[in-house]
Amino acid sequence: MSARDGVFIAFEGGDGAGKSTQVGLLAEALRAHGREVLVTRQPGGTDLGAAIRDLVLHGDHVSPRAEALLFAADKAHHVDLVIRPALAAGQVVLTDRYTDSSVAYQGAGRDLGAAEVHDLQMWAVDALVPDLTVVVDVDPAEGRRRRGEVHDRLEAEADAFHAAIREHFLAMARGNPERYLVVDGTQPPDAVHAAVLDRVRATGALDAVDGGAP
Amino acid sequence: MSARDGVFIAFEGGDGAGKSTQVGLLAEALRAHGREVLVTRQPGGTDLGAAIRDLVLHGDHVSPRAEALLFAADKAHHVDLVIRPALAAGQVVLTDRYTDSSVAYQGAGRDLGAAEVHDLQMWAVDALVPDLTVVVDVDPAEGRRRRGEVHDRLEAEADAFHAAIREHFLAMARGNPERYLVVDGTQPPDAVHAAVLDRVRATGALDAVDGGAP
Repeated sequence: MSARDGVFIAFEGGDGAGKSTQVGLLAEALRAHGREVLVTRQPGGTDLGAAIRDLVLHGDHVSPRAEALLFAADKAHHVDLVIRPALAAGQVVLTDRYTDSSVAYQGAGRDLGAAEVHDLQMWAVDALVPDLTVVVDVDPAEGRRRRGEVHDRLEAEADAFHAAIREHFLAMARGNPERYLVVDGTQPPDAVHAAVLDRVRATGALDAVDGGAP
Repeated sequence: MSARDGVFIAFEGGDGAGKSTQVGLLAEALRAHGREVLVTRQPGGTDLGAAIRDLVLHGDHVSPRAEALLFAADKAHHVDLVIRPALAAGQVVLTDRYTDSSVAYQGAGRDLGAAEVHDLQMWAVDALVPDLTVVVDVDPAEGRRRRGEVHDRLEAEADAFHAAIREHFLAMARGNPERYLVVDGTQPPDAVHAAVLDRVRATGALDAVDGGAP
């Protein structure tokens, strides 16, 4: 891979797993190596995306298929207007969530199947898959226990929901080991970052643009 | 088909073919036979649909895939909230444009193929196809000639675009003769209506709810 090739890296994981901390640390490390870095997030990231999010969150009841299509539209627009141009310009694109989150959250506990949402998302992004997806993995029940929260019926349901989401990320990683890295998010941030950096080296993203020392 | 079964009839055709006139005439005839009739149209027909249309028409550049997904979201919402409930209540639903128009207009002269847009639309409506689709057919060039309009280069391009749309409707009808009726839209409205009514009889939509004389 040439030093000027764009590199696309996605971070996935449950809420509070520490994804945005890791995105920030990696962006810093990449810039220190002379790479131009674009940091973005899903959903949102464009004006159209924000308008779509308002429609879904603040409007009246939206049918499940309509909701999935609206989120897919946000993704399509974001990829076409933000991510692809940055990759074409040789930048490293880091995104906080991408298609796996959409599939995991919409496919878990909703009326639509994960396979259907996956196909829809792949069509939306015209099959643009990341060079690397980092799953920052935290057991949701463990996270709750560590925070010492009371465990009632609603929270148990929430645990099942978040466990299904986690399982989706891990299953994707098992099925595509060459494109996924699972890191234990309960480690200190620096340890997680070191594991990420190790793997990112293999994508060519740490090659300096000027062809300097690796 | 029981007299209480819902019946779903779509009208397709180019602009100015006389679709809305025919929808109105058919609604009147069905109501005279004691049927409850819901008249609707695509795109639009719901608040969400109107908001989506505003996004697409009045926003900045929207990427082609995002646009197709937004229109599909409008369709999904419309079917779930308006069309399916009316059919479940035994009404006759008449829609001015449905999926064939979306496929024809988005697939003609755009970046996306008709087959892709068709698959997307079918997913959006969860495979709800009309019992009958009436194609009100008018040759676009003939229409222009009858109006005595000047024919310049831009209009010739527009003719090619509208000819492609017309060909899509006719191809769908050729492939599914049991679910389509093509009527010559250059006939007087009453003659078109008579041809439509003849065919609609076969769908059961003219059976009176009270089981009275056909």
